[in-house]
Amino acid sequence: MALIVHKYGGTSMGSTERIRNVAKRVAKWHAAGHQVVVVPSAMSGETNRLLGLALEITATPDGRELDVIAATGEQASSGLLALALQAEGINARSYAGWQVPVQTDSAHTKARITAIDDKRILAELDAGRVVIVTGFQGVDPGGNITTLGRGGSDTSAVAIAAAIKADECLIYTDVDGVYTTDPRVVPTARRMNVISFEEMLEMASLGSKVLQIRSVEFAGKYRVPLRVLSSLTPPDMPLEQEMRSGTLITFEEDAQMEAAVVSGIAFTRDEAKIMLLGVPDKPGVAYAILGKVADANIDIDMIVQNQSVDGTTDFSFTVHRNDFQKVVQIMQTDIVPAVGARQMIPDENVAKVSIVGIGMRSHAGIASLMFKTLADENINIQMISTSEIKTSVLIQDKYLELAVRALHKAFDLETKPEAE
Amino acid sequence: MALIVHKYGGTSMGSTERIRNVAKRVAKWHAAGHQVVVVPSAMSGETNRLLGLALEITATPDGRELDVIAATGEQASSGLLALALQAEGINARSYAGWQVPVQTDSAHTKARITAIDDKRILAELDAGRVVIVTGFQGVDPGGNITTLGRGGSDTSAVAIAAAIKADECLIYTDVDGVYTTDPRVVPTARRMNVISFEEMLEMASLGSKVLQIRSVEFAGKYRVPLRVLSSLTPPDMPLEQEMRSGTLITFEEDAQMEAAVVSGIAFTRDEAKIMLLGVPDKPGVAYAILGKVADANIDIDMIVQNQSVDGTTDFSFTVHRNDFQKVVQIMQTDIVPAVGARQMIPDENVAKVSIVGIGMRSHAGIASLMFKTLADENINIQMISTSEIKTSVLIQDKYLELAVRALHKAFDLETKPEAE
Repeated sequence: MALIVHKYGGTSMGSTERIRNVAKRVAKWHAAGHQVVVVPSAMSGETNRLLGLALEITATPDGRELDVIAATGEQASSGLLALALQAEGINARSYAGWQVPVQTDSAHTKARITAIDDKRILAELDAGRVVIVTGFQGVDPGGNITTLGRGGSDTSAVAIAAAIKADECLIYTDVDGVYTTDPRVVPTARRMNVISFEEMLEMASLGSKVLQIRSVEFAGKYRVPLRVLSSLTPPDMPLEQEMRSGTLITFEEDAQMEAAVVSGIAFTRDEAKIMLLGVPDKPGVAYAILGKVADANIDIDMIVQNQSVDGTTDFSFTVHRNDFQKVVQIMQTDIVPAVGARQMIPDENVAKVSIVGIGMRSHAGIASLMFKTLADENINIQMISTSEIKTSVLIQDKYLELAVRALHKAFDLETKPEAE
Repeated sequence: MALIVHKYGGTSMGSTERIRNVAKRVAKWHAAGHQVVVVPSAMSGETNRLLGLALEITATPDGRELDVIAATGEQASSGLLALALQAEGINARSYAGWQVPVQTDSAHTKARITAIDDKRILAELDAGRVVIVTGFQGVDPGGNITTLGRGGSDTSAVAIAAAIKADECLIYTDVDGVYTTDPRVVPTARRMNVISFEEMLEMASLGSKVLQIRSVEFAGKYRVPLRVLSSLTPPDMPLEQEMRSGTLITFEEDAQMEAAVVSGIAFTRDEAKIMLLGVPDKPGVAYAILGKVADANIDIDMIVQNQSVDGTTDFSFTVHRNDFQKVVQIMQTDIVPAVGARQMIPDENVAKVSIVGIGMRSHAGIASLMFKTLADENINIQMISTSEIKTSVLIQDKYLELAVRALHKAFDLETKPEAE
């Protein structure tokens, strides 16, 4: 008997028929003798409907009241799932975040979980019940309803799994696992059976949309084994078969993992680049340029400063595309005149491609193969950044698909079976 | 400065535009220096939508989970109203039942309020805020979400008004007050400026749909002055004018009230009659017939037992039309054979008409005028029941409108101005 947390996304909860399917799947786990906690999202479209009503009333809604409104979506879907489980003959009860309670800080619409009381959940499990806990929400020290922000149900599920020391946290979603890259770009992309936590973190942060990055960080912090699998398989699929589907995100870096030097190709179009040409090269110039950007709570991703020529240098950095206009404005009004740059060149037509793999730690020459592959395709590399287990390059966005396909092939991700 | 509770029904909260109108009206009261607590219903249609989802999943939904689901309607509308008030420049906060808390018993879907903590509400009012409290819901001793049943938002508003010792509880609805009878039946029906609490109780229980009867009982118990008024008047109507509109439900039975002997004509089509003919007239026969009905939690309204002839009697009673089929079945299977009745005659084609007035206590001959009026119209009276301040008759339902019009005229309700 294992203690398992299931998380179901909005698409999986998208209709009463689908909710009944979720109940059938949970019932199968329960019948096999497992203790199950289920964390459902709101029915798909519901959160957008609620936020739409709020925006009809005011363009600048207060966070506290937005959370009051948005939290109702998960509460309703949790109650509906409890009814569906009861219809399957399962003793089930739903709990809102405040009833557990799931304690958070007071940062409305993007709160962080600070503590989860396991007593009520464990008592209900011991009473033979399936326990449903609303995802996405909690309660702050003042007793106010909070939400974790978009995609927060993943984080809720992982945090609950950590709190009750679950054996595994299963994230059921509309894809069947983590792929070597996006199958829409590379049709021969292969589902990984296993990926290391650190690789998953890089894949998630670099644009692989399967899991919310905060949930992966949480899983890493508390060493919760995560499995991503499809909610679209038949709910009565044999349990052993279901467990072999999907992708396990593991903390065990054993022999099997080392076989794959590069595990996947991640990419994102959410980048934008700003180049400042002819910046007088004085000490403190990086801070002079980027300090105000950081003050505006804008994350900077890649940074490159060229070799100084004649006392001036070219300085480039990237930000999330959502922040692009704001950063361009900060540069124009505050920075370019202040640091005396000759010219600013903003560029939205860029994309970032990354190779990710824990094997890169111990294998040399990986980045070279990446650069060679791109050169062979005549793709110019604008910026490079590296970490222990990934190498990222910024390229012109029209070459993105070509680059991903070429790298996927060059690192033999299409055919290489994982060592298992 | 007064302490006022406003309650808005589902129609008044039916769209974001209407919610903005509610906010404008509340803002007017706040601007005039009053402390305001607002109790909104769910947006019209929302509760039915949520219950419809539950019934799609199971025909016999569990009460606890139904409450979890249904309670989200008021939570969302409360948050939306808070946003609308903030957009009017008012400092406002919404609270769900459990946050106040509004304590109830554990009778899910029809819970009763047991206590309301006034501390948080009063502290927020003292901080200059408008406080929004979800209607219809509370929390039981086990920390489970409960709802008060349909129309329960009226009861929530009155209970909150009682708890915080409000000066008045204003029920804003889609009619502009309590009428001498239903204006759809008698176009000359007149809005009453004042009605006594006891008369309102009879009017409400007899089918006048303006206020939920439990809210009137609650108002009576805690002597909360209630006012029914329209949410469809312009929100910027001058405050004095708004206060003169609607109907005040008062506890002061002073001279002005005595002038009206009969205040209104109430009626309902929700009745159904069962006649048992030729029942052997033995002691305990009434209990033998009605005991099983009461055991099935079915309320019996009117009861008539005829004079015994040849040792047998005819026994008639009425129930709510919703319970009719169930009662007929109980009679057929259990009662008719057991008591040895000769025949059962079920009849759904009946209606009840009542005259109501606190003046009836001290004036004789009121019932006679009622009977004479109906006789003049050739309307046969099937059953009669009386209380201190009302007389009800059961008639064939096709005569209902005729009876109401004739009585409204006979008691001069069309023209008589109230003494004020």
